[in-house]
This record gives sequence, structure tokens and C-alpha cells, in this order.
Amino acid sequence: MITAKARAVDGPDKSFRAAEIKRRELDVHDVLIEIKYSGICHSDIHTAQGEWGPVQYPLVPGHEIAGIVTAVGAGVTKHKVGDRVGVGCMVDSCGECENCRKGEEQYCLKGNIPTYAGVDKYGEYTQGGYSTHIVVTEDFVVSIPDNIELDAAAPLLCAGITTYSPLNHWGAGPGKKVAVVGMGGLGHMAVKIAHAMGAEVTVLSQTLKKKEDGLQFGAVDYFATSEPETFEKLAGTFDLIINTVSAKIDISAYLSLLTLDGTLVNVGAPAEPLEVNAFSLIGHRRSFAGSMIGGIRETQEMLDFCGKHQIVPQIEVISADQIDEAYKRVLASDVKYRFVIDISTM
Amino acid sequence: MITAKARAVDGPDKSFRAAEIKRRELDVHDVLIEIKYSGICHSDIHTAQGEWGPVQYPLVPGHEIAGIVTAVGAGVTKHKVGDRVGVGCMVDSCGECENCRKGEEQYCLKGNIPTYAGVDKYGEYTQGGYSTHIVVTEDFVVSIPDNIELDAAAPLLCAGITTYSPLNHWGAGPGKKVAVVGMGGLGHMAVKIAHAMGAEVTVLSQTLKKKEDGLQFGAVDYFATSEPETFEKLAGTFDLIINTVSAKIDISAYLSLLTLDGTLVNVGAPAEPLEVNAFSLIGHRRSFAGSMIGGIRETQEMLDFCGKHQIVPQIEVISADQIDEAYKRVLASDVKYRFVIDISTM
Repeated sequence: MITAKARAVDGPDKSFRAAEIKRRELDVHDVLIEIKYSGICHSDIHTAQGEWGPVQYPLVPGHEIAGIVTAVGAGVTKHKVGDRVGVGCMVDSCGECENCRKGEEQYCLKGNIPTYAGVDKYGEYTQGGYSTHIVVTEDFVVSIPDNIELDAAAPLLCAGITTYSPLNHWGAGPGKKVAVVGMGGLGHMAVKIAHAMGAEVTVLSQTLKKKEDGLQFGAVDYFATSEPETFEKLAGTFDLIINTVSAKIDISAYLSLLTLDGTLVNVGAPAEPLEVNAFSLIGHRRSFAGSMIGGIRETQEMLDFCGKHQIVPQIEVISADQIDEAYKRVLASDVKYRFVIDISTM
Repeated sequence: MITAKARAVDGPDKSFRAAEIKRRELDVHDVLIEIKYSGICHSDIHTAQGEWGPVQYPLVPGHEIAGIVTAVGAGVTKHKVGDRVGVGCMVDSCGECENCRKGEEQYCLKGNIPTYAGVDKYGEYTQGGYSTHIVVTEDFVVSIPDNIELDAAAPLLCAGITTYSPLNHWGAGPGKKVAVVGMGGLGHMAVKIAHAMGAEVTVLSQTLKKKEDGLQFGAVDYFATSEPETFEKLAGTFDLIINTVSAKIDISAYLSLLTLDGTLVNVGAPAEPLEVNAFSLIGHRRSFAGSMIGGIRETQEMLDFCGKHQIVPQIEVISADQIDEAYKRVLASDVKYRFVIDISTM
């Protein structure tokens, strides 16, 4: 077994503490990664606090992992020692079901193995990226383009792919009007990526506080959703709306902003059900859809796209001792736009 | 003005009574239709009872109209005296907006003119098909294929197109698994049409009472939704679900029956909002959508398709005096599968 230093939490509302965790010895297709940076995602908080169902503590969150390969199993062909690599929200899947065969491992019919708070095929409880090392089967390790720094690369592994995938799937591009709801970690990536894809991007945020940033990231317009006239003014405007807000919002009001055949895609999942007025769907053949991260092939495509278009998240690098404080700031929407833990401080 | 005999209702919970209504003199592009048959749609009941918002009484419902052209305006080129024609849920639209130009007049951005309970471009309150005559601009009159009897043709103008359009739009066809929720007027048409399109059709109905009919209409399977194991057994099965039930149902449970990228389309609209668990969308990139009737071009296409495939609804022809009784039976789901008024009894 390989010993890794980590930061773990022992229960909801508990603080993070230093911990040692074990990683398995390398199997034939395994890659050992020395983690350099690990992003903090809102999902980490939901999971750490037990809001998405019971979890086993101590828990080491983190699924925005960027690091360097330090060892590989005998059968590894995709990565080699010294490679700059990333790991996202999943570390394995069945590989055999219809969805896995399509390269949509995130929708594995047997359930993909999440990077933390899951059970892998060795029967081990998975622990995430707030740690110095991780062992992952090569198929779930992606390559980070040379022109993206490792600290900036980390959030691409969740915030990047979670927004890239629906933008790609629903055809954001030239001639398409895309709205992004929420200007947090996911939202700011959605703006940058949709803009790079050639779409005309509008941000819908509670207030205009981050307007200047939004326009700089590539939005052509920015509206406050706290103003009721926003909804009147923009009725029937957008081909695609990416909703990055994982709290309960008035979905029917946002649906009314879609054009004929438009789609509102939720990438966040509030715990409580969302109310939908069927007339708001029927009136213009609109769709309310959901999307979850992306497949491994698409994650690599996203990284290459970001490299090509020089797209990186705005990050605030913190030390391992600042995780609790960062969680509080994420919950207060006080982050521009993603916290990334410098694992060398662990 | 042209005088027509009709059956009108004077308020919610009032009985239908004989009435005389006026139809406009033919404008240059108008067609005068002697109505032979008029179907009874659940929407008629919702509207007559004021459940979809205030209406002006007396009200003459009816938007499943089949008849014979008896006069045409000087500029009419699409229809001639003696033609067998139909009129559906709308009698006009702006003709100029983006959606009208696409042939999707049902989604007219200025609002299409409904066949009844609307106001037309002459400022007149529209009155529907429970009457002996109607005057409609030629673009909103469709041709009924020779091999479809007029009584059976009537329900195609709403029940037919309302189910054909989403089946067509979302690609029901060979290799696709389609579920139809509800086996009423719309549901039984959805089964017949989806089967004729080449899809593998399953009916999801509250009970198994109409199972034999469903299989005869072309379904390969039929399940009772009152049995909880139905939802376990069919999880992740369907590419497309057409929900014809206009009462509130557990949408998230039905979403769980969809495969990756599957779509649940509501063609009915319950007055109260529907609750959607975002996880049920996100988990397999599913969509919850709505669809409203179809455009005029698509309505003609549907009629031609039904003629070609010999698809007609199951109907029960009633006299004009039986409308109240028919409404009660529709509300009690006691109809196989569509009431059609024989207008000669008016």
C-alpha cells in the first residue's frame, strides 16, 4: 500500500484535519499520480455535509485533480512517468454497458465509480484529491495540454467538463444564443467556453456585481435576475440556457426565456424537487434537461479545446489549512471563481 | 353574415343548448365548410368549464372538424367546392413571425388564433366546430384523404396531430422504444401512429383494463402504472415517452424509465405545476419537454400518413343532444376512444 497525506473531514459541520490514507499498490493498468493541485467544488461541500445522502467518514473530497505521473503499472500505455495529467469526478466504470461503450462512462448503467465517497472494484472506499497521491486506472486519467498550468487545469476536470459537455451536446456555436445562469465556478467556465465555441453569451445572475467580469469572460450581455423586467425583456430569446445554480430556482420563469425548441439544462441538482409549469414547455416545444459531467473522451476533448483557445478558470490558490474557510466562502458566493488547494502545503 | 346552428354552453357546469351563431361572409381567401362531424376533446371540457382561464360565454367548443367545402372566396386556390376538408385547433396566425415562417404556426409569436375562445383578425370571438358551418382562411384548412371517413377523420385534427407531431419531431421509428402514457383519445392515437412509424410501442396505463385494445392498436407491451414494480422493471428502457395524461403525475418516476438522452414529452397540461427531481434528468441526460398540436403543413402530412397507413381513431358517434353526457363520460375515462358529434343531428 502507498501512504498519502490528506485532509479529511469526520462528519457534517466538522473541520478538516490532517490525515494519512492508503492508496492501493499499482495494478497492471494503474497510474500513480503525485497530486499538485486539487480544486474545491460545491459538490465536495454537499457530500462532506451529507446532504446528498449518507457518506462514510472520514471523507477526503476532491475531484478536480491535476498532477504528475510518478509510476505506472506494467500494462500502462496511455501515460508515462513525468506526464502532466488530470483526474475528474470518476475513477472507473464497468466499461461494458451500452453507455460505457459509447464513451459516456459518466452514465454507466452499473454506476460509475466516483473519485470519492464511492466503492471501487477492489472493494475500497474511494478518497479524493485533497491528498498528495492517488492511484487511478489509466483509462480514467487524462492529459493536460502543455500551455495550461496545473493549478488552473484542476477546475477544468469538473467545472470545465460539466459546462463543456452540455454546450457541446446541445450545439452551442455560431448563430446560437446561450444564457448562463449563475456566475460561480461553473458559470464563469460556461461563459468562457460558450464564447470560445462561437455562441452569443448572456449571463443571468442575481445581481450585477460580477458584470464586468462576465463581459470580460466573453458575455455580450449581463442581466440581474432579481429584476422582474429581466424576464419580460428576454422572453423567448435563448436557444440554450445552462443553469449552474444548484439551489431551487423558478424553472418555469427561466423556461419562458427560451425560443422555439430551446433547452434549459440543469448541471446542478438541488435536493428539493423543481416545479415546472407544463404550459411553459408546451407553448414553444421547449425542453428541461439535465447533464452530468462528461465522458473521458469528451473530457480530453475539452482539455484540448481549452488549450487551443487558451481558456482557463479564474482561480484563488489556497493552502491545505484554508479548506474550511474556503467552504464558508463558497457557500457565501465569495469566490472568484474557484478555489484550488496547493497540495504542496499539505 | 352566415347563420349556423350550433350547440353552446353558457358557463361552467351549464348544459349545452341549441344556439344560432353568425359566421362572417367569405373574405377573398376564405372557405365555407359545412361541418359533418366534430370530435370532443378534453380541451373542450377544460375551456367550457373555465379551467384554463376566463372565457366568453356563450361558448361553442370543437376543434376536430371534418366537413365539405360549400363555397370559396374569389382568391382561394387550395380548396374547391365539394372537397373533403378538416380544421383543427387554430384558424389563423400572424404568418410573418419566425415560427410561422418555419411552418410552426401553432407557436406563432403573436399567438395563433384558436378555433374557439379566441379573437380573430376581424375582431370576432371565435366559435368552434359544434356547429353546422364554419368560415376559415384557406391556409388553415387541410385536405382529408379519400380513404378516411369524415367521422373518423375529425379526431385526427387534434388527437392525431398532437401525438404525430412529437413522435415525428423526436424521431419515433425503427429501433426506437416508445412508451405512451394514458390510453384515452390521444393515447390510442399515439400507439397507432408510433407503431406505424416503426417504433416498438409500450402502453403505460393506470390499469390493464384496455390492454387487449392496446395490443391490437400495435403496442407490444402494456403495463399498469398502479403497480410499483412497473417502474422498477422498466427503468432506463424508453427512448421517448409521450405523456397524454393531463392530470398531475409523478414526472420524476416516468423520467426514470428513459434511457440515456431519452425525452419525456407532455402533450397535456395540468393546471398545477409538475414536480421534477433534477437528479432524474441529470443522471442520464434526460429531457422533459412539451409539444402543442402541430403546424398546418405537418397536419396535412399526418393526414396523408394516416391515409397511407390506414390509421383511424376508434370513435363513438353521438348526436348533438348527447354532448353533456359525453363530457361526463370523458371525465370518467369512459370512452373508447373519442366521441364524435354527428352534426346532421343538430
